[in-house]
This record gives sequence, structure tokens and C-alpha cells, in this order.
Amino acid sequence: MPVNYATPSPEALYPIAGVRLGTAEAGIRKQGRKDLTLIELAADSTVAGVFTQNRFCAAPVQLCRTHLAAGTGIRALVINTGVANAGTGEAGRQAAEATCAAVGTLLGVAAKQVLPFSTGVILEPLPVERLIAGLPTAKADLADHHWHDAAHAIMTTDTVAKAVSRQFVIGGKRLTITGISKGAGMIRPDMATMLGFLATDAAIAQPLLEALVKEAADASFNCITVDGDTSTNDSFIMMASGQGELAFKSGAEANWNEVRAALTSVARQLAEAIVRDAEGATKFITVTIAGGRNREECRQVAYAIAHSPLVKTAFFASDPNLGRILAAIGYAGIADLNVENVKVWLEAAGKTALVSEQGGRAGSYREEDGANIMRAPEITVRVDLGRGFRTATVYTSDLSHDYVKINADYRS
Amino acid sequence: MPVNYATPSPEALYPIAGVRLGTAEAGIRKQGRKDLTLIELAADSTVAGVFTQNRFCAAPVQLCRTHLAAGTGIRALVINTGVANAGTGEAGRQAAEATCAAVGTLLGVAAKQVLPFSTGVILEPLPVERLIAGLPTAKADLADHHWHDAAHAIMTTDTVAKAVSRQFVIGGKRLTITGISKGAGMIRPDMATMLGFLATDAAIAQPLLEALVKEAADASFNCITVDGDTSTNDSFIMMASGQGELAFKSGAEANWNEVRAALTSVARQLAEAIVRDAEGATKFITVTIAGGRNREECRQVAYAIAHSPLVKTAFFASDPNLGRILAAIGYAGIADLNVENVKVWLEAAGKTALVSEQGGRAGSYREEDGANIMRAPEITVRVDLGRGFRTATVYTSDLSHDYVKINADYRS
Repeated sequence: MPVNYATPSPEALYPIAGVRLGTAEAGIRKQGRKDLTLIELAADSTVAGVFTQNRFCAAPVQLCRTHLAAGTGIRALVINTGVANAGTGEAGRQAAEATCAAVGTLLGVAAKQVLPFSTGVILEPLPVERLIAGLPTAKADLADHHWHDAAHAIMTTDTVAKAVSRQFVIGGKRLTITGISKGAGMIRPDMATMLGFLATDAAIAQPLLEALVKEAADASFNCITVDGDTSTNDSFIMMASGQGELAFKSGAEANWNEVRAALTSVARQLAEAIVRDAEGATKFITVTIAGGRNREECRQVAYAIAHSPLVKTAFFASDPNLGRILAAIGYAGIADLNVENVKVWLEAAGKTALVSEQGGRAGSYREEDGANIMRAPEITVRVDLGRGFRTATVYTSDLSHDYVKINADYRS
Repeated sequence: MPVNYATPSPEALYPIAGVRLGTAEAGIRKQGRKDLTLIELAADSTVAGVFTQNRFCAAPVQLCRTHLAAGTGIRALVINTGVANAGTGEAGRQAAEATCAAVGTLLGVAAKQVLPFSTGVILEPLPVERLIAGLPTAKADLADHHWHDAAHAIMTTDTVAKAVSRQFVIGGKRLTITGISKGAGMIRPDMATMLGFLATDAAIAQPLLEALVKEAADASFNCITVDGDTSTNDSFIMMASGQGELAFKSGAEANWNEVRAALTSVARQLAEAIVRDAEGATKFITVTIAGGRNREECRQVAYAIAHSPLVKTAFFASDPNLGRILAAIGYAGIADLNVENVKVWLEAAGKTALVSEQGGRAGSYREEDGANIMRAPEITVRVDLGRGFRTATVYTSDLSHDYVKINADYRS
């Protein structure tokens, strides 16, 4: 059960002019579920992406990088679930190439104008014949109002489909943004997360879109963690169809900052949806670190807290066993941290408790205040390191019985 | 239930001449359990220790460092469970000092000749009056054959008491070593783990003992992890009473290497006992990395595998979902790792399976071989990085339902 997140209804997802989506049951791993998605883009769309830094990155991720670098214009995306096509060596690369070739033939575009994506079990061969056999059905299903179906068809251990859609009026012109994402485990994106697809009808020049996709990933998917496991397949893609009312060639143009903020906020909502639906999650935890000398050390401390199994199980139990947070701050790797200057607060639903200062428990702290806050479904851990002016925020979930159940049973 | 580990019987633990131990119920946190241990050392014993690198290190750890640095000869150790006296600020330091002063008065030694240790909940005040009130009972209980009682009295979430005792004949002379340890969660020692105490009857000069305690910790407690959480209270202490048949002033003397190896092997057994009794553990996992350019990158990869919740739940489920191991190797942080050269084996009880090579699944790998090995209670993951000649080994446990249960319920 996700924490305060529900999939929007199909009608709540605006179509993006120039973007059509189709899904199919290809039977890649399991029968009776949609596992293949095709996204077709109008000519002259711009597309940019960021991908996992995992050295065992999947074959489709390698091919995405090559095809984006070719600069011939991306016209289609193809996404399968069930098998990640990672840890599959040379055979995996051939399977991804065959997939792109088949999509190219079907849609009348070049293979290098197709981006392939896979998600599922690592180290298993991709049944590429079944995937290719499913493509005509996906093509026949192509329509601009199929975002809701596509959000469902890219799910694996997700319990809800994740989609965000918003319309803005900027400088008197309409901007539409719709995006989908998936992921619930193996979540600690290094450049982006598996998988996020975001489309807008604005025209955005290629270099501008490339800069924006990095910036938006850093403010969204690169701030979340479920289990600290960076996937082999993480991909976050932004598509600009250029069929709407807004167009940008440079970041200096009027209204670009508003558009940038709008796209980034949708990316953040997609990323948050992943944490809300984290495997076994019962709480949505925001970890905000201030007072650092640089952003990197703030992120180090935030991730130490967000990854600690002891902190995460305490949140699950609603137990204010908050010394575990101090321990995580202490081992986060800031060698010259003066713990006398560190302050820790716990916050939820308008309530705030100063938990720790001067190296110990705050004089004003009452166990019942901590217990009250810990019972809330959305909790913020706020830390001031007391040594600078930089900040960082990370979003995570608790660690529950269901996390173990899901991951001990998944695949078997 | 620990994995292939049982506490030795009281008779199997050799006394160490010059070392007496006594325990008491001080009621520090819970009633009806021994929670206070006193260890008295003969004059002229040498003592050396290594401690946690956690910046929120406990007040007793800070005092241990000060008292060892004073160089006036340690005569007693005092250990309480229930409250860690960490994250307790100035009040915590005063409580630790009052404890040492009380032990000093009771045993007729100086306060700075006493080392204090605490383990339990962080961020709670130590009820130092109850601790001090329990000391006379512990003193009255002092005896050289009370190692078994002491091993029990230092337990927290441990399910078994941990002790190792061995006698050697080296160069025709008898060497006796007995040690105890505790710990089951918040285990990812940075210098040592919470808590290990090892005594020998050999005489070992102070500088020699100080070098050895570091070396032995690196080969034992610094190679284990349960949950990646480095405790605030980790301490590993070696005591040499000098009342046996062997004596060493320098590392160049005959038989020193044998003694060093004997002490290190006992330290390793104590450290392994902690992993075998890890919270909720059903498997004992050895992760061995070879073919690295340096030891540090081997340890990075070993810890990435050993900390991955996905790898750990797969071991719990006996599910050869081994792509999770590849993912962990891939995100371990070796930026220029060539995955084509990486090989991964799974081993148990004399069976070996080559799982992965050339970036994908090994041609000879059969799922049923992997499944057979995964069912064993003791499993080795062996990785060759294919880029050098250095190695590292880390010991860990699986992640089970009981880990969550224990840590969601502990303290509440």
C-alpha cells in the first residue's frame, strides 16, 4: 500500500500532442499481464536522458547512450518488463539491437532512432522473439490518450501505476507535461531511476533539454532511496514534441525558468511516487540536512540516515529510538564533525521536536512528543550540522516485514 | 538461532592467570538479568584497545581513549548493558567518570586505571547510581573461572553468549587465550566491534600489544557486517596478564609470530560468532574478492554485496537471484571496472558454481546448481575482479523477517 499516493484516473492524464503510446502482452516472463510498451514521437521531437552509473549497466542502457549520441532524432521508445536484459553480455546487446531494428521496421524509422528499455530480473536472457512478436499489437494500440495504460504496463513490484500530468499557462501560452515512472525496490538512483518518462508539448532545443534532464534528475530521482541498491537499468527520459504553444532555443529566452521549474516539479512528483510505493513502505520519510560545508557532505549524512536499517525499522515500528539517527550521523564519514554543534529535529504534520543538541538529548525533548511524531505517515528528520551553509534533501521509506517478504519471494 | 555456533560450556573456558571476573544485576534498564560485569587485572598487565570511528562515539569510549593514553597501567574494566551512554553529552561523560571513580575506590586503584564500557540504547541517560550500587556485588563475585557468566552478562539482542578459549604450546611453553564478545545488530565495525574482550597469560610489552590489537581487529572485527550500521560504542580490548610462561618485549623475538597468529585466530572466531548470531540470521555468508588493484577496492565491492538488502533477502529465501550480486558489484564505486573481466562463483560445502563471466551468465551455470548451494547454511560468494592481485574478505548474514521484527520491537 503506497503512502499517500493514488494513480490519477485516465482522464486526468493530458495527452501530449505528437506523442502516442501503445501496450501489449508479449508474455516475456509471465502470462496475462501487459509487459510491452511502445512510445512513438513526432518528427523533430527532442529527447534527452540520464542513465545508471552501475558498471553492470544493462544492454538497453548502453544502446540508449549510443543512439542518443548519434543525434539523428529519436522517434520511438520500446519498454519491456519481466527481464532486465542486464548481466547478459554480448547476447544481451544483440537482443537489444534486434528489438530496435524490429521497432524501426514497424514504424518506418531507423534502428538508431529507437531507444530500448528493460526492467525485471537481472542475469536472465531476454526472450527477444516473444518481445518482437508482441510489437505489432503494441503498434495497433498507439494513441495519444494511452498514458494510463503505459504507466501500468511498465510496473514490476510496484503496487500502483505512477503518473503525473499538469497543465500550465506561461506567458499566455499553454504548456502540457505528462510523465510516468516505475520502481519500488533496487532504488538508489545514481543518475536517474528505473524508469521515468516525461513528455511535454513545448519545443525545447536539444542542448537545452540535455542540461535540463540532468538538473531535473538531480532535484528528483537522484534524491530518493529505498534500499541503497543502484539498479543496472535506471533511465530517466525527457521528451519535447514541439507541437504545443511554447518553444525554446536557449535558456536566456523569456519564460524558460518557469518551464524549467514546471518540468522539474513534475519530475520530483514522479520520483516521490516511487518512494511512496517503495517495497513494503508504510512511511514517507524526508531527510533534510542543513549547515554543511558542501552539498556532498550533506548528502552523505542524509544517505547514512536514509540507508540505516536500524533507523528504517524504528520508523516502521513508530518507535522514537532516535539514538540510531545519531549513530548514522556519526558514521556518515565526516571525520572532523563536531557533534557538540549538531542539532536534530523530528517533524510531522506541523509538529516539531528538537531531539538532540550539544551531543546529547535536548533538555526540552519529551519521549511522548517523539512517539506522537513517529506515528505520522509522513515524517521529516531535520539535521543542522552546524558547520556551514549548504543543504541537501533525500526521500526514503521505512523498512517493514513486507520489504523482506517481497524480496525473499520475488522471482521464485 | 545462531548459524552453526553454540556457547562453549563453562569448563571449556580456560581461566587466565591474573584475570578475575564478576557480574551483578544492577537493574540498569530491565530487572532480572545480569547487566554489570567487572574485570580485575593483576598489576603489570598490559592492555590495548581499538574503538569505533563513529563521531557520536559514546562517553565511555572517549574515557577509554584518555585512560589508555595516560599509560599508568589498566587494572580494571567495567561493562554495563541496557544503556549505551552515547548521545548523552556532558552528563554522559560525568556518569562514565563517576563509574571509574567508584570502581577505583572499590578495588584500591586510580580512576584512570579503569576502562568503562556501555552497550544498549543510545540517547538515554545512564542511571549511574544504580550502576554504582551494583558494583560491590560484582566485586564479591570476582573469580578467574567466571568467563562464562561474563559472556552472558554483556549480551543485549544476542541470542547466545559468545566466548572462545584455546591453549597452545609454543616453543615448549603454554599459552592460554580466552575472549568474549557481544553484538548482533548495529554491526559494521570501523575499528572494532561492540564488544570484544580477549585476555592472554603471556606478557606482551605495551607497544607490541598496541600494534597487535590493530592488526587482529583488521583481520577479524573489521571484516564483519550485519546491517552496515557502525555502532557508537564499538570496543575491542586485548589484555596480557603476564602471569603465564611466555613473555615478549619485541616482535623480533622467537615465537612471536606464532603467538600473534594464535591471538588473531581467536579474535577472528569471536568476530565470526557475532555474525553467526546476527539479528535474525539464518545463513553465514563469506564474501571473498580477489583480483583487485588494492585492498580498499576489494573491500568496497565486498561491502556493497554484504550490505545489499536485495542480496541479503535472496540468501534468506535461498533464491539464486544472482543478478542482484552483479548489480552490487556494478555500483560498488569502481568507476573503470571492466565487467567483461569479472567472474562470480557461488560455493558451499565443497560445491562450486561459476555464475557469471564475460559480463553475463556463465555458459556452464545451471539454475539448479545455484539453488542447491543457496540452501546451505554457510555460503561463499567469490568474485574475481580481473584487474590486479589484491584480495579482501568480509563476513555477513542474511536479512530475514526476524531482523525487522527484532529491530522494530527492540526497546519498545
